[in-house]
Amino acid sequence: MAPTKKGILERLDAGEIVIGDGGFVFALEKRGYVKAGPWTPEAAAEHPEAVRQLHREFLRAGANVMQTFTFYASDDKLENRGNKLALTGAQINEAACDLAREVANEGDALVAGGVSQTPSYLSCKSDQEVKAIFKKQLDVFTKKNVDFLIAEYFEHVEEAVWAVEVLKESGKPVAATLCIGPEGDMHGNSPGDCAAKLVKAGAQIVGVNCHFDPLTCVKTVKMMKEGVEKAGLKAHYMVQPLAYHTPDCNCQGFIDLPEFPFALEPRILTRWDMHQYAREAYKAGIHYIGGCCGYEPYHIRAVSEELAPERGFLPAASEKHGMWGAGLEMHTKPWVRARARRDYWENLKPASGRPLCPSMSAPDSWGVTRGHADLMQQKEATTKDQLKQLFDRSKNH
Amino acid sequence: MAPTKKGILERLDAGEIVIGDGGFVFALEKRGYVKAGPWTPEAAAEHPEAVRQLHREFLRAGANVMQTFTFYASDDKLENRGNKLALTGAQINEAACDLAREVANEGDALVAGGVSQTPSYLSCKSDQEVKAIFKKQLDVFTKKNVDFLIAEYFEHVEEAVWAVEVLKESGKPVAATLCIGPEGDMHGNSPGDCAAKLVKAGAQIVGVNCHFDPLTCVKTVKMMKEGVEKAGLKAHYMVQPLAYHTPDCNCQGFIDLPEFPFALEPRILTRWDMHQYAREAYKAGIHYIGGCCGYEPYHIRAVSEELAPERGFLPAASEKHGMWGAGLEMHTKPWVRARARRDYWENLKPASGRPLCPSMSAPDSWGVTRGHADLMQQKEATTKDQLKQLFDRSKNH
Amino acid sequence: MAPTKKGILERLDAGEIVIGDGGFVFALEKRGYVKAGPWTPEAAAEHPEAVRQLHREFLRAGANVMQTFTFYASDDKLENRGNKLALTGAQINEAACDLAREVANEGDALVAGGVSQTPSYLSCKSDQEVKAIFKKQLDVFTKKNVDFLIAEYFEHVEEAVWAVEVLKESGKPVAATLCIGPEGDMHGNSPGDCAAKLVKAGAQIVGVNCHFDPLTCVKTVKMMKEGVEKAGLKAHYMVQPLAYHTPDCNCQGFIDLPEFPFALEPRILTRWDMHQYAREAYKAGIHYIGGCCGYEPYHIRAVSEELAPERGFLPAASEKHGMWGAGLEMHTKPWVRARARRDYWENLKPASGRPLCPSMSAPDSWGVTRGHADLMQQKEATTKDQLKQLFDRSKNH
Amino acid sequence: MAPTKKGILERLDAGEIVIGDGGFVFALEKRGYVKAGPWTPEAAAEHPEAVRQLHREFLRAGANVMQTFTFYASDDKLENRGNKLALTGAQINEAACDLAREVANEGDALVAGGVSQTPSYLSCKSDQEVKAIFKKQLDVFTKKNVDFLIAEYFEHVEEAVWAVEVLKESGKPVAATLCIGPEGDMHGNSPGDCAAKLVKAGAQIVGVNCHFDPLTCVKTVKMMKEGVEKAGLKAHYMVQPLAYHTPDCNCQGFIDLPEFPFALEPRILTRWDMHQYAREAYKAGIHYIGGCCGYEPYHIRAVSEELAPERGFLPAASEKHGMWGAGLEMHTKPWVRARARRDYWENLKPASGRPLCPSMSAPDSWGVTRGHADLMQQKEATTKDQLKQLFDRSKNH
Repeated sequence: MAPTKKGILERLDAGEIVIGDGGFVFALEKRGYVKAGPWTPEAAAEHPEAVRQLHREFLRAGANVMQTFTFYASDDKLENRGNKLALTGAQINEAACDLAREVANEGDALVAGGVSQTPSYLSCKSDQEVKAIFKKQLDVFTKKNVDFLIAEYFEHVEEAVWAVEVLKESGKPVAATLCIGPEGDMHGNSPGDCAAKLVKAGAQIVGVNCHFDPLTCVKTVKMMKEGVEKAGLKAHYMVQPLAYHTPDCNCQGFIDLPEFPFALEPRILTRWDMHQYAREAYKAGIHYIGGCCGYEPYHIRAVSEELAPERGFLPAASEKHGMWGAGLEMHTKPWVRARARRDYWENLKPASGRPLCPSMSAPDSWGVTRGHADLMQQKEATTKDQLKQLFDRSKNH
Repeated sequence: MAPTKKGILERLDAGEIVIGDGGFVFALEKRGYVKAGPWTPEAAAEHPEAVRQLHREFLRAGANVMQTFTFYASDDKLENRGNKLALTGAQINEAACDLAREVANEGDALVAGGVSQTPSYLSCKSDQEVKAIFKKQLDVFTKKNVDFLIAEYFEHVEEAVWAVEVLKESGKPVAATLCIGPEGDMHGNSPGDCAAKLVKAGAQIVGVNCHFDPLTCVKTVKMMKEGVEKAGLKAHYMVQPLAYHTPDCNCQGFIDLPEFPFALEPRILTRWDMHQYAREAYKAGIHYIGGCCGYEPYHIRAVSEELAPERGFLPAASEKHGMWGAGLEMHTKPWVRARARRDYWENLKPASGRPLCPSMSAPDSWGVTRGHADLMQQKEATTKDQLKQLFDRSKNH
Repeated sequence: MAPTKKGILERLDAGEIVIGDGGFVFALEKRGYVKAGPWTPEAAAEHPEAVRQLHREFLRAGANVMQTFTFYASDDKLENRGNKLALTGAQINEAACDLAREVANEGDALVAGGVSQTPSYLSCKSDQEVKAIFKKQLDVFTKKNVDFLIAEYFEHVEEAVWAVEVLKESGKPVAATLCIGPEGDMHGNSPGDCAAKLVKAGAQIVGVNCHFDPLTCVKTVKMMKEGVEKAGLKAHYMVQPLAYHTPDCNCQGFIDLPEFPFALEPRILTRWDMHQYAREAYKAGIHYIGGCCGYEPYHIRAVSEELAPERGFLPAASEKHGMWGAGLEMHTKPWVRARARRDYWENLKPASGRPLCPSMSAPDSWGVTRGHADLMQQKEATTKDQLKQLFDRSKNH
Repeated sequence: MAPTKKGILERLDAGEIVIGDGGFVFALEKRGYVKAGPWTPEAAAEHPEAVRQLHREFLRAGANVMQTFTFYASDDKLENRGNKLALTGAQINEAACDLAREVANEGDALVAGGVSQTPSYLSCKSDQEVKAIFKKQLDVFTKKNVDFLIAEYFEHVEEAVWAVEVLKESGKPVAATLCIGPEGDMHGNSPGDCAAKLVKAGAQIVGVNCHFDPLTCVKTVKMMKEGVEKAGLKAHYMVQPLAYHTPDCNCQGFIDLPEFPFALEPRILTRWDMHQYAREAYKAGIHYIGGCCGYEPYHIRAVSEELAPERGFLPAASEKHGMWGAGLEMHTKPWVRARARRDYWENLKPASGRPLCPSMSAPDSWGVTRGHADLMQQKEATTKDQLKQLFDRSKNH
């Protein structure tokens, strides 16, 4: 970190707004560098130019954090289900750190090293075994001297607490986000209880990421904040939601929607939805505001633009964006120029263009979680027989 | 062009499928490099790394054509309505040619130099004046030795014919696409008549791009093909549609939708829609198949994957994509693994997640075209008074 | 007919608006007196109080015509497909005439005797055979001295012409309506050609009924009017549409919608839709304006209320209805009182309350018509084997 | 009551299913005999033939209860807001009793005298004043010797308890239903607490009616049942929901929907929805199952048909209805005959035919209840100034 940059806790303690980046796996899947299913981040080493470009776009959009592209970069995950990679986990984690640092140095951004939930936990491995996995990633983050650490995308607060305990050993600031909604984690812990556990384990920043749409996530972090305060604790709060509308989700979030992951397009939020999200998050006392799956750079730009009055500046990418559609004043067609105004976009109810499709879906709900035989992970690719059984069962759900 | 590459006409004459790229202005607007409203391509010179990366992603997705990012790069357009740029048109056109060539050389792709409709035509300038504008762009394409030329995005066949006449002077193959639907061009010429005019003017490849969704565009090119054949002429056919569903459009296409351009998200096509599109286009005898606004690299990859049996190979980016969702066999959750099959995705009717929104919109339809005072272009930014008048008029439409 | 009542042609010749009644089979199916499938009108004899009450409600709503409840009351239809009735066709037709006359005498309404398309025609019987069927119904109408005659619900203009030719023998005024849309009849005759044929056969009033929603029907009658005028002929025009929205219908109308006939509820028009319909019909020069399947008495009342300025009076049932929601001024809740105004109801886009359902359906389109083996009618009930074959075929369509 | 008829409690104690009737005010509004806004039942005296016919249709559909058409027939309500009637409350109540008895005697049905919430309560009158109003109606019911009594459509359990206390004086069985959902009454009492209060006050049958759709009402009655059992009490349960889908309602139910009361058509339940409702209600231990606003006779018939296996017989009106669409076996068109099967109708997701409309609405929520100045009732018609104020306020909500 350049000597003049303030650390993450300094910023939040000073009441500054910290803009996070958006999710990498979905964005890079669309660009051709990540495989849906395994969702592993080997592109950090294989195609650094693509990962660097996405970092740079989020930086231009106003992000203050470059999160290392190390999602699911634990060794047990990289080996999971026939995902054959030529690279070691350490190689991928190191390459990701270098890219994040390179782009962070181009602007006012910090580097955050990230760990996420493990197949080992789902397969009921012990806390020692799971912690050893996090420790291997932490060793790289320490060597590369990231600015702070994030334990993110945990469905079970128990595993997230283990992760926080490992990350705390580094002495760096630690943030922790669960991928839960208002119903709480997969073991039935409420958002408030989850947050209190994480703070007690040492996390200075807590919140949620992924799995639900922005307003649902803001609601969940509010419940976390109430839980932390009720427990007599203190913390900063963060939120990194989906850029997909999920009014029809149950407790496991968008994974359970029939559209996941290849037909979520009609649910993508507009930039105007992002303005509303950023405002609601800020009003709720959440100061670390970013995104997750589905976010493109323009979504983060919209967050930055909404909060420009509070931050005092616009992001670099706003050179190519008129606030509230002002750029349309230069459109060739007069009726499009007439759309260059805030109330037009704020009140528009956008059509799906899909008259044969519904507006909501019935989510799958197998209702299984850690410990259930269905969730024991395997290294081999799924066999035809196993798939056949799954198809048959899915019909009966 | 490397000596071993076959030219565009050689390929089409041999019955090969040519995969086009997707649209640059919408994709780069989301990434933060193009301004909606003017839609001009100065990023080719200002942010070459971003433009290069997008070219590369389309190449990986299977595109055989790198179209120079020169949309709206005519001098009269660059000056339009207060769009103040530090770069000359020639500088932008040259930078765009260099980027396209650099990436084309990384694979089996050709470089196509592109011109598009001009504000001068809308403002009723003479054919000499309009042709002079195209000639300036052609001079750059000639100097940079592009492989072939495309006159694209014309609402009036008259102007497209002028463009073809200019481009033909180069001796290079010429393709021409109108942004029209089944109702024909803004002057009421049917698709069949338009196509015959373009072929007579010298275009070897004709078709449509932009403004309508894939199946509407395929239908329009079919009408063009019938018109060309009825006139006793011959041509190759191409199609580069939107990646937005537009069942509610009238003759002017998605420009007239209230969601244009900042709330089109719910209309974005899935990769499975693209499979259907690619198959229908191919069955209609269209062999140059690409995309326009709304296309992301994964959309082009889906076109390449659908036509892999005919082409005999998959695109590079399919290393990160299982056909028909096969990658999900490696997903952690068993009910998601159950989605790893073609019939699941082919039959899914994806929900919008927006229960307060409709499925179709009523398009604006001012019904004005070239010659109407409303369409006279100006160099100055639109004034407050002008905007006020537009808002008032838009309420009465 | 009471001596003081003006006949149907006198009224139309004088430029008066004639309000028709609504459809009986659907309304009485909901009330428990008609069986969906056979759709026959034996209730006229079996449950006269129910039929009388519905006549009376339409009279109160402003209808000037009491159409005899003799839809599908031809002998060949009554015997069709296992529909075992204890009553003869003549008995049903006579009972229906008596009920219509009784209620017509309670107000300013005429009695119209109606015939409709026959299974015999679909089964390719000769014109002599088909005409003999109409003649039997006409004998009852003549005996009961109805005021005028309607040949309605014909999918093939050829059969409608035969019906008109028979009805003309009575010397009474004859109206004729086809159940077609803008694409014309099942043999491909355009609406304009169909109308001209009917006028030439002697019909003084022509139009359409059933199968399509109001605005589609108005559009079709406009095409009929143009056809009649182009042929140098003269006629009066009538329209009796569905009270269901059918934007997704093909040429055979709502029969082909997957929701027909037991899940059409979400498509039912509001009273405000009826205001728009009545105004559009009147503006198109159609002066005989009524309804068909789906119409409840309040729908006809809305037609009467919209045209009250032209007619100079409100219908009796308006004693129980405030124009444009004015009755809500007496509602208990203030926010409901705030809805007592025209612009509120005119601009409302009513929600379906069904987020898991689409807004449009893909219609069946077997594309078979008279002469096709599939349409040969039988007297026996459909067997299990026949049904099984139909289910299998319907999956492949 | 004929000597051989079992009373309501005998039936329920014996485990019999009792089918209720549907709502009269909405059904008769559509037929032209009730005015929306005041919703008063003067038609019982003014147009007995219309009221009798509706009773008869519900009887044919399987209803075991003929509820007197005395909704809002209290003297204070009849005088409310400019509703000028020539008849006294007593005259209306007496006429309603006579009609219910006449039709009940035609079949196996009981007569229930009904009272409902009063404007006096909303205007904060004392318990003595409110009870005096109920007493006047009870005097008529006693004189006419109805079989049992129902206190229905109460938003505040306090007023319902007062009503029960009055009705109990008669010595007849008393049922009580609130128009509440899972959130409880307007004063925040939970469904369980409300039910316990009603049982303690002497009601032998408790449940809900109106305001919410069937499955929401079943859910609410389940909560009531749990509350009664938790309080160590015993009761029978009844449910009379709307025939409108209301997934978007808040605590005040369909009154708050923007479509209330004149644009609810797209929300109307199909007969197949009714099968599901009847089954769910029965499985929940609710044995008195009927309907309220939006119910047409065919809806009640569907309830009777679903429960025919348990009851051992079909209703009279099933002579005109094939179970699960079986009547379509007699349809002219083969593709419609293919729909004559249960799984077709059970799985259909019916389209709205309204692509410009959403699937859900945002309800009004003024959040005012008894005691708030907004709810003080007046006898005079609402003035123009009052309406203007309401319009302005409704815009700000």
